[in-house]
Amino acid sequence: MNTQRIGILGMGSMGRALASTLLEAGHAVTVWNRTPGKAGDVLALGAHEASSPEEAIEASDLTIACLLDAASVRETLTPAMPTLTGRTLVNLTSGSPRQARDLAGWLGKHEVRFLTGGVLAVPPAIGTDEAVILYSGPRDLFGRVAPTLAPLARPHWVGGDPGFAALYDMAALSGMYGMIAGVVHAMTLVQADGGDVEAFQREVLQPWMEQMLPLMFAESDPDESNAGMQATALEIMLGASADAGVPAELAGHLRAALWEMRRAAA
Amino acid sequence: MNTQRIGILGMGSMGRALASTLLEAGHAVTVWNRTPGKAGDVLALGAHEASSPEEAIEASDLTIACLLDAASVRETLTPAMPTLTGRTLVNLTSGSPRQARDLAGWLGKHEVRFLTGGVLAVPPAIGTDEAVILYSGPRDLFGRVAPTLAPLARPHWVGGDPGFAALYDMAALSGMYGMIAGVVHAMTLVQADGGDVEAFQREVLQPWMEQMLPLMFAESDPDESNAGMQATALEIMLGASADAGVPAELAGHLRAALWEMRRAAA
Repeated sequence: MNTQRIGILGMGSMGRALASTLLEAGHAVTVWNRTPGKAGDVLALGAHEASSPEEAIEASDLTIACLLDAASVRETLTPAMPTLTGRTLVNLTSGSPRQARDLAGWLGKHEVRFLTGGVLAVPPAIGTDEAVILYSGPRDLFGRVAPTLAPLARPHWVGGDPGFAALYDMAALSGMYGMIAGVVHAMTLVQADGGDVEAFQREVLQPWMEQMLPLMFAESDPDESNAGMQATALEIMLGASADAGVPAELAGHLRAALWEMRRAAA
Repeated sequence: MNTQRIGILGMGSMGRALASTLLEAGHAVTVWNRTPGKAGDVLALGAHEASSPEEAIEASDLTIACLLDAASVRETLTPAMPTLTGRTLVNLTSGSPRQARDLAGWLGKHEVRFLTGGVLAVPPAIGTDEAVILYSGPRDLFGRVAPTLAPLARPHWVGGDPGFAALYDMAALSGMYGMIAGVVHAMTLVQADGGDVEAFQREVLQPWMEQMLPLMFAESDPDESNAGMQATALEIMLGASADAGVPAELAGHLRAALWEMRRAAA
């Protein structure tokens, strides 16, 4: 393996998971956190703690930012910009596509080589087969850093537009939130009307949703996705929710989603 | 196999699927539809067409109603009640838990043996391994009719309360609608911001949702479901939706669902 020198800015739970995984993969890791003393077990694994962002960037071939938000990234990098110029930065801080594009514009003016990332994983999943990190930015740069970043999570390049990693990340999260909303609504409805929530979840809801999920992505057969029948079932379900006193906010999105489906299909 | 005489009221696409599956299983089937001439290929498979609901009920050991809605069930059964008294009816018409309980009360007064059902399947899935029909009502009655009904779909008894089959059916549908809302929102967001919807769906969204779904039902580890981080990601996602001009109705449910999760966890 080709040992790299990697700087990590931000020692939150995700930053620590990145650092320990890269250390275990044999890389030399320098970490920095605004509040010192947060690196904990990462130092025990062999990381060096820098006293400033500049020091971490200076000591590294590749710097990863994993901070609180886009404003923290600006604040952290502004004084370090002379050091960062001509070097490579990968930003794994959560943010919107617009924030990623703004950051790319600013870093581009300072000749920083820059990739944005979207982490589709919780910190304990970093370094496992389940984790994926989406990257966007120059493809050749992705090609060069992907082998170094691969131990963290499966690296998946989604396009040259620096906003795309954040866009796809946020969109994937919104899909998950829809599932959560559906599960919460289903269990709230069963509970409100006196059903056995635990048996419903285990014996009915989970098998049904696992069966239906792949069909959401299959080529739709007009015979099987009869919009009229869907609308009838939806109205009955909304009525049942009202009967059971289940909040309308949680039910209303279902009608909106169906309208959107019909509009998209039209 | 013990051949049964089965009446089916309602020759919509679901009624026809039930009839043809029961004929293929070797049962004697009599069908009725308000508008004659809808039974089509079911008659070619050997069904007899009755000219009234009474005639179908009279000719059968077990009658299945699969009509448009709860009002159609009342309207169809009212003149047939003297014939139905003392016999067995299984209602697979879509309806709310309250409608199922009202119907059970009315039929109980006329000494009809009654099960309510919720069909978790589209008509083409009837008779396949994927289909499930939920039943509620007297357990001993379910035990007697389940072998006859098993060729249609896996029969699953969910309780004595006649409303439970409809309750669990509607709740499971609401879980599915949540998934649909999430998928539609995700794809709308990617499309509105210029992403590659097809690649996003195939390479990012579907694998992510398939990975996350079982975790919705797993024991939650407080470390992995940090409500603060979820709230941060949600606000970024709502901001990205606003940036991209994606409708607020479709995004709003996500915030409502997260509130509900936090309330439930508290």
